[in-house]
This record gives sequence, structure tokens and C-alpha cells, in this order.
Amino acid sequence: MPAPESTANNGQPPAHLSLKRVAIDTYRENVAYLHRDCAVYRAEGFQALSKIEITNHGHRILAVLNVVDDTSLVGPGQLGLAEQAFAQFGGQDGEQVHVAHAEPPESMDAVRRKMGGERLGLEDFQSITRDIVDNRYSKTEMAAFLVASGQTGLDRDEILYLTQAMLDSGDRLDWDEPLVADKHCIGGIPGNRTSMLVVPIVAAHGMLIPKTSSRAITSPAGTADTMEMLAHVELSPDRLHEMVRKHRGCLAWGGTARLAPVDDILIAVERPLGIDSQGQMVASILSKKLAAGSTHLLIDIPVGPTAKVRQMTQALALRKLFEYVGDRLGLHLEVVITDGRQPVGRGIGPVLEVRDVMQVLENDPNAPADLRQKALHLAGRILEFDPDVRGGHGYAIARDILESGRALTKMNALIEAQGRQTAQHPPGALQFEVCAERTGVVAAIDNFQIARIARLAGAPMGKGAGVDLLKKLGDPVSAGAALYRVHAEVRADFDFAHHLSQRASGYRIEDSYDAGLPFAAES
Amino acid sequence: MPAPESTANNGQPPAHLSLKRVAIDTYRENVAYLHRDCAVYRAEGFQALSKIEITNHGHRILAVLNVVDDTSLVGPGQLGLAEQAFAQFGGQDGEQVHVAHAEPPESMDAVRRKMGGERLGLEDFQSITRDIVDNRYSKTEMAAFLVASGQTGLDRDEILYLTQAMLDSGDRLDWDEPLVADKHCIGGIPGNRTSMLVVPIVAAHGMLIPKTSSRAITSPAGTADTMEMLAHVELSPDRLHEMVRKHRGCLAWGGTARLAPVDDILIAVERPLGIDSQGQMVASILSKKLAAGSTHLLIDIPVGPTAKVRQMTQALALRKLFEYVGDRLGLHLEVVITDGRQPVGRGIGPVLEVRDVMQVLENDPNAPADLRQKALHLAGRILEFDPDVRGGHGYAIARDILESGRALTKMNALIEAQGRQTAQHPPGALQFEVCAERTGVVAAIDNFQIARIARLAGAPMGKGAGVDLLKKLGDPVSAGAALYRVHAEVRADFDFAHHLSQRASGYRIEDSYDAGLPFAAES
Repeated sequence: MPAPESTANNGQPPAHLSLKRVAIDTYRENVAYLHRDCAVYRAEGFQALSKIEITNHGHRILAVLNVVDDTSLVGPGQLGLAEQAFAQFGGQDGEQVHVAHAEPPESMDAVRRKMGGERLGLEDFQSITRDIVDNRYSKTEMAAFLVASGQTGLDRDEILYLTQAMLDSGDRLDWDEPLVADKHCIGGIPGNRTSMLVVPIVAAHGMLIPKTSSRAITSPAGTADTMEMLAHVELSPDRLHEMVRKHRGCLAWGGTARLAPVDDILIAVERPLGIDSQGQMVASILSKKLAAGSTHLLIDIPVGPTAKVRQMTQALALRKLFEYVGDRLGLHLEVVITDGRQPVGRGIGPVLEVRDVMQVLENDPNAPADLRQKALHLAGRILEFDPDVRGGHGYAIARDILESGRALTKMNALIEAQGRQTAQHPPGALQFEVCAERTGVVAAIDNFQIARIARLAGAPMGKGAGVDLLKKLGDPVSAGAALYRVHAEVRADFDFAHHLSQRASGYRIEDSYDAGLPFAAES
Repeated sequence: MPAPESTANNGQPPAHLSLKRVAIDTYRENVAYLHRDCAVYRAEGFQALSKIEITNHGHRILAVLNVVDDTSLVGPGQLGLAEQAFAQFGGQDGEQVHVAHAEPPESMDAVRRKMGGERLGLEDFQSITRDIVDNRYSKTEMAAFLVASGQTGLDRDEILYLTQAMLDSGDRLDWDEPLVADKHCIGGIPGNRTSMLVVPIVAAHGMLIPKTSSRAITSPAGTADTMEMLAHVELSPDRLHEMVRKHRGCLAWGGTARLAPVDDILIAVERPLGIDSQGQMVASILSKKLAAGSTHLLIDIPVGPTAKVRQMTQALALRKLFEYVGDRLGLHLEVVITDGRQPVGRGIGPVLEVRDVMQVLENDPNAPADLRQKALHLAGRILEFDPDVRGGHGYAIARDILESGRALTKMNALIEAQGRQTAQHPPGALQFEVCAERTGVVAAIDNFQIARIARLAGAPMGKGAGVDLLKKLGDPVSAGAALYRVHAEVRADFDFAHHLSQRASGYRIEDSYDAGLPFAAES
């Protein structure tokens, strides 16, 4: 007889049903389907959204209940499980299973304590992340955790514990080398494709830099989207390891490995809610990097009026937080605060960004100077992780590697190793230009608005879609001069982007512009 | 061309699909199903759990996306909608619909401000409740709202606004009389079936008291469950109105009317999360009562070490909150703080509670004195809402009505009007007694533990299941004397309840018991 203290009963005898796989992808939420006329459903007093426990032969999962009125989906004697739940349960179609009321997962006690304003410990965070990875949380329970820990804010030790717990939730790569470098930008600046320059420079120096990146979620392009114009980015773990050993680097998509998986789950719930918590961001970034085997990490925090971080004081507080957690988890971590007042480079969107990156690698005199400068700055700081590089010499070494063509050679080697994309993809053929309404100087460029226009134009799904900036901050312009060009591949996208750019161009022209000197161009 | 500022696009042209009804009950969350091979799904870069907007001929809904791998559910050219979403959309099977990315509902801005600790205004709460009732919120968005407003706590004006907004979210009954009385207990005390005594007493006096009650959610019985042993409780609005006009009262289930519907939706999300917010409780109770047309309301707050409210100071703070909101919404509201140190009456579970209630109505000398006393106390306070009743005379009038048999006559009239249940239902035949381990005095009874044992024994689904208390606080007991009897209808329930009661009986026996005098037995 099961003990009454089991999470799974309110005393009802377990009920027997025949298991059926239901081919619905409910994304990390276990969902079970019972027919409304199912005797068990009626007798147990279940309700839609009840949490139920399904058991058989030692298999045991929790699921949220949906009620079905169509016997072709599930019949009155069946229990349907959505794909994730079916896979996790590990049973066979048609086998007998038991269902019973379930209590919330045990770690929800900790979530409730957090809602009440309490401080949680490492074990609390570990039990929460374990239950989430085991699909024991419903989406609403995850939302409760995210809101509760985002709102009162986690203190820095709680962020440390959360990072550790997220790291423990999945696999951890071991490159078996003393120095594994990586970089990460907290995001928000369109066109900021420095990784595609930093990785070939650093790898050409001989330092290991196995860089994995994400695809765009809300931006016009992620590094994985842009790199994909040149080479395959979805590599098997084996192939990735092999090429990194041989070439000292890669520019791959990070979605294939099971690194800090709880992070991916939480992000999927967090993003639609628009929760923006520094603590969760720090834990998310550092747990992923540690899981990927990084030993040395450079974090880029762009600051500007339309960047994620708007004030230097905020940037400094965020830097301390990264340092506090990184130090305690054995990560050699450096933070650079960079100029986030405008997009980096000219092109925004996969094809246009590839053009900028290749111009820099090819030492084209027309290459965008700010992208080149920023990439050398970041690469130089990473090269100084090398004990043999004297402090302050990194930038010059990076520049030598770029100017000598060794960075381009390395980039071509990485492209070949990942598998070159031979198809040429031109910028979108539908184009329009947005022009200055007055004569003056470019005094402000709105990162958000430019990104929105590029997205409306079709980026990143439309590879050739996006925005090509013709003027940057401080450039003098005459009335009627083109500020930027928008490329689209589809008429409707063209119309949407055109409409939006007419409402607000994202540019401000004034009589003069004082650049100030808040950021060092070279370190 | 739709304007780009619509919530529904990121510039993608709207895609056309054939509508299909999917017979899944997703309970107040709109869910849409797309096949994984659907061209639209792939081209638009949708993700599972994305929010999408479905439009056609002016119809327009938001839904959360589930991805399907089985063409018998939905084909690649179809868009499936779960039952709620299909009904709300109002379209036809097979008609062409457009789908596009959707932004979160506008009022999520207010939720995010609440997450950030800001104070919300009436319009914020109204836009939130409107979006929720229109099924524009996903479950995670609802959870975010609940956690954010439960955690920082709402101030009393915000609770007032929330109450008003919940009230505005649905219909409002109008009894067209100057005095419509009601009572409500905040819950947590097993066996507390005073409504079944208060309503016949008050209605026999001639005061209008159209009482609707809930079924048990987490307790061993709700008033609707217990009343259902005697009469039908699910009445159509017309029939309810007719009987209330004729008999001045009713004891019906409240689930048929559309009163403060947002409350039901939020409770469905809130309950599994175990969120316990006083602000939400006050808003929930008062919006429901105002929507039901009450003008005069008596609130019962039981206090005791195992009640919902444990300290008198908490009870007083809660009383002020009820008064503040009630006064501003034009409700004549009185709060009584009652003894919540133990269950009320003897029986716990539908059949056993009916026995207690009928004993009181029939003036049986064995009737449980505490149930009788409490019911007279509450009924007396309600009778004093009558301007013709002199302050302090209510209790005596209530007692006269009970002792004269007029309360029983009224109860029988209500039962006949609702439709008498003729089937007799005996207490569960499987029984065991839990006995005192030592000689002494009953010094504590744990409301939670007794309720859990009654639920494990099968209540309320098992009508005859439950607990029958043989000893109450202050009763002297000899070692081996029976403290309570447990009834079950099913063997497994019997075993579960037996196991739990052996682990912890819920009773504490000591040498002496000082009752103290924290609560007036008669007012």
C-alpha cells in the first residue's frame, strides 16, 4: 500500500487507464489528456488544469490535465500523454497506467517562501532546478518562480546559488586544457557581430575559443544566423570537438548540447512575460559558459540611451555582480563596458552583417571602422588572458593578426571545417532609402527602432532583409541625404518597414553633436 | 494594409490556413494547434508557446501555440483551435483564417509595472481583468499577475480597485429590494455549516437572503455539497429568482451565474500555486457578493492556532480591510471574529454534516451545541441589519425562530422549492475509531489534520465518508476512549485514512485545559 504521505494521492485508489501517445508538442510542460466521460475523471473530481500523477512499474511523472471531448483523440478508457510527457514516462502505447491527484512538486515550498520575501539557499535552488528539468513544474509554477525571484530581486549570494544550480542541471563540457576562452555580449545592439572577428583572431593566436551562439529571438540577427550564411552551424558534439581541437575555435549554434538546460526552459517562459531581471541574466549567462567548459570569459556590456543598460552606474553594478559570481565559481572573468549609443557596423540582418564582417577580415579600406575597432579591442583583452602576453599588448597583437591576413585564413579554415555554404544570398532586392529631413549632424540613433525596422523588413528569416546604415553618429548630413537603406525580400515586409520608418526614422539630426569621451576606443 | 503598430505582426504577411475545431478543453486558456510541417509555422519562425493572433472578418483572438505531429489532429494546411478558443473566435470549421505573431496583451504593461513594485490604478486593474475575461492572457501571464500582486502586496486602495474591476468583469444581479443579506466565512474550519441554519432563520424572519455557495475545493465538504444531500442545488437563474421571491431565501450552488467571472479564472490558476494573498481574498469575496446583489454582508473570520487566521491582530487587520473596501463600494458590511480553535459541530463530510444541521433545526437535545450557538450568533447579527430590530435583540429573535420550529418549516420549504432529494444516504459503512492514548482533557484539535483525514476517507466525493467527532476541546477523556469515528465507503480510502490517523490523530490530550475567554459565545 502506498503511504498517504506520497505526493500523489488524496486517498483515492489509483485508477487504471490505457496509455496513448498524443502527438502534440507542449514544450517542456507535461500535459495529460482524459476524456470527459472517463470514469476516473468523474470519480476523482479532477478539474481541468489539475495536476495529476501517472505511474506504472516504477515510472512516475506529473502532468497538467486537459479534458478531451473527442474519442478519436483519447477514449474514455485511455490516458493521453503529449509527446514530452510520453517520452519522459517511457511507457508503451496501450499499457495500463494509474492516475491520481498530485500535489505540486516539493520545491514549490521554496518558491512560496521566495514569494513571501525570504532568502533561499543553494539547496532550494538545486531542488527547484531539478524539478524543472524533470518537467515537474507547470508553466504557471515556472512563472511564479520567475516573477517571485525577479521581483524582490535575488541578492548576490542567491544569484550565485541559482547559477550553481543551473550549472548542475545539465552536462558540462571538459576541453581538457588550462585556458578555454569565450566572450559574451549582454545584447541589445544591432549589427554587433564582433564574435565573427574575435574568434578567428583569438584562434589564430592559438588560444582555444570554442564559441557557440544563439539564433535571433527578438533581434534582427544572432551570430548563429549570420554565420549560417557562410557555413553550417548545427554540428554534432563529436564533430564540434574534433574541429575545435584542430582549429582552436568554432562559430557554431549552441542549441545541440544539453548545457544548463534549465536556462532554456526558463527563458521560454520568461521571454513572453517580458521579465527583465539582472540576477536571472547573470545566472543564465554564467551557467551556460561554465557548462560549455569556459575558464576565461570576457563580458561586453554596451551602455547608451537605447541600450539594455542606460547608465554607467548600472553598468558598474552589473559588472560587480558578474565578478562576484564568476570569482566564486572559478571562472576568470573580465567585464568591458562599451559604447552602446548606436548600432555597430553598417549592416543589420544576416547578409548585410556578413558583408561587414568580411570587409573587416579582408582589410577592405571601406570596412566599418567601429566594428573593426571594437572587435580588436575585445580580441586584445581576450589575448591578454594568455600569461605570455604582456598587459596592454593584446590590442597590437590582435591588429597584427588581422592586418597580416591570418585572421581571414583562420576564418576560411573554420568555414571549411564546419562546411561551407556555397549558395550566394544577395541583399533583398526591394529597397528604399530613408533621408534626412534637415541639414545638420546625426545626434542620435535609436537601437530599438532600427532593430524593429530591420525585423519588419524580414530579418532574420529573410536572410537578405535588413537595414544598411549610411550615416552614423556625428556624421554631417544635408537635407534629403540618405541616412539608411532598407532591404526586403517580400512586398508586404517592404510595406510594413516603410510604414514604420515613416512614422519614426530612428535618427535625430541636430545642429551639432558632442561625442564626449565616455568610452576608450582602444584600451 | 494593417498598420504596423497593430499588436499582431512583426511585419510578416498574414498567412492563410483552414480553421479546425479541436475537442480539447484547455480551461480559459486559448490554445492553437499548428502542424510542425505547416509552411506558416516554419516561415514565420513561430516557436512552441509563442503567442499568435488569429483573425478573420473582424473576428480576432490571441492563443498560445502548441505544435502537432499528427495529421489526424491538424494537417499542415490547418489551424486547430481548442474548444474555448474556437467558441470565442466564432468561426466555422474549414473557413480561411490568418495567423500572425502576437504581442502580449496591452495590460501586461501594468503587470510588469506591478512586478517592478509600482502602484496600479483602477484603470490598470480594469484593463487587466478585461483582458483576462477575454481570454487574452496565457496561464503564465495570469500567474505573473497573481504572484506580482500577491507578493509586494496590494495596498488597500489597490484592493479596492481590484474588487471594482472584478465586479465590472461580469454580470450583476439586482433583486430590486433595499435589503439583500448574505454571509460569508473565510473558511478553513471543518464542519462549519452555519449557512444551512442561518438562511432558514433569516428567511423565516422575512429578510431576503439568496445564498449561493461553492462546492468543496480542498475541504471535506462545501455548503453546496452538504445541501445537495437534501435538495437540488444547481438551479437555473430563472428558477432561483422565482423561489427567492416566494421563500425569501435559497441554498444553491453559485456556479451557474456569470458573477465576477475573472475571480473563477484567477482562482483556477492561483489554487495550484498555493498563493495566499489577503488582498486577493478580500477582492474575490466582495466582488462575488456585490455581483450577487448583496447590500448587507456578514463576514465570519475564525481565529485559532490551526485556522487560516492564527492571531487576533491579523484578524483585526483583515477586518479593517474588508470594512475599507466594503464601505467604498456601498456594501453594508459587518465582520465577526469567531472561535476557530476546533471544528464546528461533530460531523465532517456531507452526510454527517446534514445530520448535525437537522438535529439543530429539529431542536434535538443531542444537537451539537457549538454549531447551534454559532448559527444563532451569526443569524442574530444579520437580523440586526433590519432597521426594525433593536440592537442586541437579534440573537433572541433568531433563537425564537429556531425554537418555535419556524426555521425547520422554512428549511423544508426551501428544500421543496429546490427539489427534494429523496434518496437516503447513510454514513459510510467502513468505520474505525481513533482513541485517546492517555487519560486527561482534550487540549487541542488540529483543523488541518482532521480535514485531511476526512478527505482521505473519501469526502466529499464519498458522500457518507468523513469524520465524526466524539470529543471536543475541554472534554475529559480516559485512556482508550474513542475521540472520533472515521467513516469510509471504499476499502482503499479506509486504509489511507487509517494510516494517516495512526501517524497523527489531530488530537492533543493534556492534564488540564484552560479555555480562556477570547470569544463571546453570544453577542
